[in-house]
Amino acid sequence: MVTARERVRRRAPGGGNRFEDILRAAAELFYEKGYHATTMQDVADRVGMLKGSLYYYIDSKEDLLYITLDQVIKKGDDYFLQKVASARDPIEKLRRAIEAEIEYVIRDQVTVGLFLHEFDTLSERRQRRILARMRRFQNQYIEIIREGQAAGVFRELDPRLAVYGILGMCNWAYRWYRPDLGFTLKQITTVFTSLILDGIVKRDSAASNSPRRTKRAAKARSSVRR
Amino acid sequence: MVTARERVRRRAPGGGNRFEDILRAAAELFYEKGYHATTMQDVADRVGMLKGSLYYYIDSKEDLLYITLDQVIKKGDDYFLQKVASARDPIEKLRRAIEAEIEYVIRDQVTVGLFLHEFDTLSERRQRRILARMRRFQNQYIEIIREGQAAGVFRELDPRLAVYGILGMCNWAYRWYRPDLGFTLKQITTVFTSLILDGIVKRDSAASNSPRRTKRAAKARSSVRR
Repeated sequence: MVTARERVRRRAPGGGNRFEDILRAAAELFYEKGYHATTMQDVADRVGMLKGSLYYYIDSKEDLLYITLDQVIKKGDDYFLQKVASARDPIEKLRRAIEAEIEYVIRDQVTVGLFLHEFDTLSERRQRRILARMRRFQNQYIEIIREGQAAGVFRELDPRLAVYGILGMCNWAYRWYRPDLGFTLKQITTVFTSLILDGIVKRDSAASNSPRRTKRAAKARSSVRR
Repeated sequence: MVTARERVRRRAPGGGNRFEDILRAAAELFYEKGYHATTMQDVADRVGMLKGSLYYYIDSKEDLLYITLDQVIKKGDDYFLQKVASARDPIEKLRRAIEAEIEYVIRDQVTVGLFLHEFDTLSERRQRRILARMRRFQNQYIEIIREGQAAGVFRELDPRLAVYGILGMCNWAYRWYRPDLGFTLKQITTVFTSLILDGIVKRDSAASNSPRRTKRAAKARSSVRR
């Protein structure tokens, strides 16, 4: 019995990315047909191999789902680290972290969607493992917010809620993004980073730091606040 | 044959909210077990009536799903309109719209989650109807952004992308919100409205309107920008 993790490292006899092909085919099928309706035969057909040969790479259909979902988080984390690595200050780190998340979600829309639809299908033990990986990922985001707050450049918002909000904004793209909408990745990241970093209210109009704006604040809207 | 829409208006012989009870029970079951795994018998059992009596209210399981998902959007829209109605300016409208969305998602977490998981199960014709309703809802949000831009108080970001971002931030709460996290609705709405309206970068630190911050901008961080 080989663990799912070890299978990821195992490669086809002739080398190559056969295992990656299988994972991709499975992810597509799970997403299109649903996990339960997909058979190992479907996966074998899509990837063009005999069903029996699939078992060289994988023990069960649930393994396929688990590895796919685990890798969604792992690869997202790797991409995040790579993008953020060379940033020097918290603002630049956060900007790059947001860009990384949007790029990742749009590029890997199928597996991100699969993650949301089929996560509950996994055994509880496997769910807990993936959740632990997600928490580690989120904590890096939270660390950026804390760093910015400690440096006095970020507002004193609850860092965890801020991260939930930021990731939500980015991750939601898996629902609405379609290439034919005509938005480039650049346009999306520009609007989202601008919203998160600067908000939508112009800096020279009445700011809205208080929970409720008063009539006085509304009147002051056109004047420069600071 | 009664249309699904007419069924919504039909009430039990003795009046009351029997139909609402059925919808709620179905939504819970679809969410817990998945739509395909849920039977009409399950729904009848949960709501405590005979399976045959269910058909007084509803023709099929797919009708139950359709009405439930259609109502997610309709009720969300009603709540949005109610919250935004008395707001006078675009900033206050947007704040209330964000509050409405978060409140709605958290209160109706099950049906919002169901919407995301089972929408694709509906027939294409029904999907298109619900999407049309969603577009009308989103357009009201977009209108608020446009109004704020026309009034010169909102930045010139693409209104549609801004709305996708805002709704994403709010709707994502269906994934992470649990009462035991210890965040009040008030805390969540405060952080999210603050992020959207004002961003995370303090107004007295270097703003970050340009896609990439230069070293010069970084040096200027501690000075007031305007």
